[in-house]
Amino acid sequence: MRVVTVAAAQMGPIQKSDSRAAVIERMVRLMEAAKAAGADLIVYPELALTTFFPRWYMPDWTEVDTWFEREMPGPNTAALFEAARQHEMAMYLGYAELTTDHHRFNTAILTDKTASLVGKYRKIHLPGHVDYDTERTHQHLEKRYFEPGDLGFPVFRMLGGIFGMAICNDRRWPETYRVMGLQGVEMVVLGYNTPSVNSQKNAEGPQQRYFHSELVMQAGAYQNSCWVVGVAKAGVEDGHPLIGGSIIVNPDGEIVAKAATEGDELLVHACDLDATKFGKATIFDFARHRRIEHYSRITSQTGVILPPEA
Amino acid sequence: MRVVTVAAAQMGPIQKSDSRAAVIERMVRLMEAAKAAGADLIVYPELALTTFFPRWYMPDWTEVDTWFEREMPGPNTAALFEAARQHEMAMYLGYAELTTDHHRFNTAILTDKTASLVGKYRKIHLPGHVDYDTERTHQHLEKRYFEPGDLGFPVFRMLGGIFGMAICNDRRWPETYRVMGLQGVEMVVLGYNTPSVNSQKNAEGPQQRYFHSELVMQAGAYQNSCWVVGVAKAGVEDGHPLIGGSIIVNPDGEIVAKAATEGDELLVHACDLDATKFGKATIFDFARHRRIEHYSRITSQTGVILPPEA
Repeated sequence: MRVVTVAAAQMGPIQKSDSRAAVIERMVRLMEAAKAAGADLIVYPELALTTFFPRWYMPDWTEVDTWFEREMPGPNTAALFEAARQHEMAMYLGYAELTTDHHRFNTAILTDKTASLVGKYRKIHLPGHVDYDTERTHQHLEKRYFEPGDLGFPVFRMLGGIFGMAICNDRRWPETYRVMGLQGVEMVVLGYNTPSVNSQKNAEGPQQRYFHSELVMQAGAYQNSCWVVGVAKAGVEDGHPLIGGSIIVNPDGEIVAKAATEGDELLVHACDLDATKFGKATIFDFARHRRIEHYSRITSQTGVILPPEA
Repeated sequence: MRVVTVAAAQMGPIQKSDSRAAVIERMVRLMEAAKAAGADLIVYPELALTTFFPRWYMPDWTEVDTWFEREMPGPNTAALFEAARQHEMAMYLGYAELTTDHHRFNTAILTDKTASLVGKYRKIHLPGHVDYDTERTHQHLEKRYFEPGDLGFPVFRMLGGIFGMAICNDRRWPETYRVMGLQGVEMVVLGYNTPSVNSQKNAEGPQQRYFHSELVMQAGAYQNSCWVVGVAKAGVEDGHPLIGGSIIVNPDGEIVAKAATEGDELLVHACDLDATKFGKATIFDFARHRRIEHYSRITSQTGVILPPEA
């Protein structure tokens, strides 16, 4: 047994007008509860420090930059890191990153029990669009405000195991899990903000959105025999509803814990990293079963190439 | 609307002693029912003509070859092709293929409404093992009796759409669906024989086996926005139970039809191939969203490469 007790710290809505300090206070409260429940690692959502600002079209880039962090930790987040050090709590934290040379990324970091940086990940699968879209019921401007991640899908040794990160829409792509699976990942941690209605298809409401969210994380866990911890920012932000549905999935693809609300809510589960071994050694023993000579399209072509017409 | 009405022709058990002629008679009966229900395409299981013989260890290769077809169509299967021609029924048929130069494959073919060959697929992800395994509750000797498929994952134009094939364990691998998705596949048809208990883990019984079978087909359908039709050979073959659970999955990953028995059973569903378009044009618009520069491990390495020890 190599048990890592994980706390999935789902967060309820953050309004545009909420201060960073108020949000950090909620996050520290969740961390205290995680500590009391014996957690080693707390997982916060994507862009955990602010409202999901990519829903707002902002022509003024000075305004855009107010949603970004220039340092991590920095003045806005020092209190969170201080609490992590005090509680000896490892952490996954999603935030908007503005680099010193002015690149913008949708980023997550992993810190250890001393609150020291273990690894960084920048979101690769950015959904949405670049320009204001009059056809959509609401905007989803991630492709405007962020560049695609440039760090790949690295994994990191921590807490006696092998951890990987993803962010939101990454979870829908089997490539995400597989690239980490090929590095022996034992737990994938990820945060998300997922609107409750498809902005391009009104008929696709919360029920289907919850279903898809679970489906992809369960498949990713099973097909790579790893734990997956998915954590939502949920609820209604300035009139825009987000699904909750934070889950902890075991290496068999089974949901072992699931959020019941769309507010701040903690799920705690003792995850045995050794439970990943059976699948990795049998049905998903990649070395024995994968046939990369037949996968070449996956890396040689980005989009669809249709077969010739008859 | 581009509707293809599909009949998933689940088959109950085939005993070792059952003749090919008796099996073909059952298959023709299923085809007649499919015709009566308005089907354009009937999908039979993996190795549909015989019992699942890879569960038997046979040191004598002459005996092994009695389970294989040397011609397709051939004397054993002429009646099935004749019925397909008569009913103008396209067909997916799984069988054990012995080539003229004596290679053995776990194969499936697709034929059109004139019963002419449209395409062939040879199973790529062979599960199981090569030699008799004393540790297992039952043998699974696919790696002994078959070579891995050498035809890749091609797609074929037929019935006004784009079709792809897979076989059994292929369905658990996201690479299977993705390689076909990158060719614009609109419907993946596949057959399987799945023991009701994991031969290496007694605790993994039917409930979990059904769950995994559904999970991977639903994820494959959603993540590539295509229909998936999975068809079981089911029930107890000479004392060895196989799961049923044949399903038809829509491009949203939702199960629209599901077998209720472990016997011969037909599921018929009118599948609109145009229902694949929304997903392919939005969330899974590969050209816009995939980032192949970060996927290189998927084709450059077969097995796991662990990160360096700290």
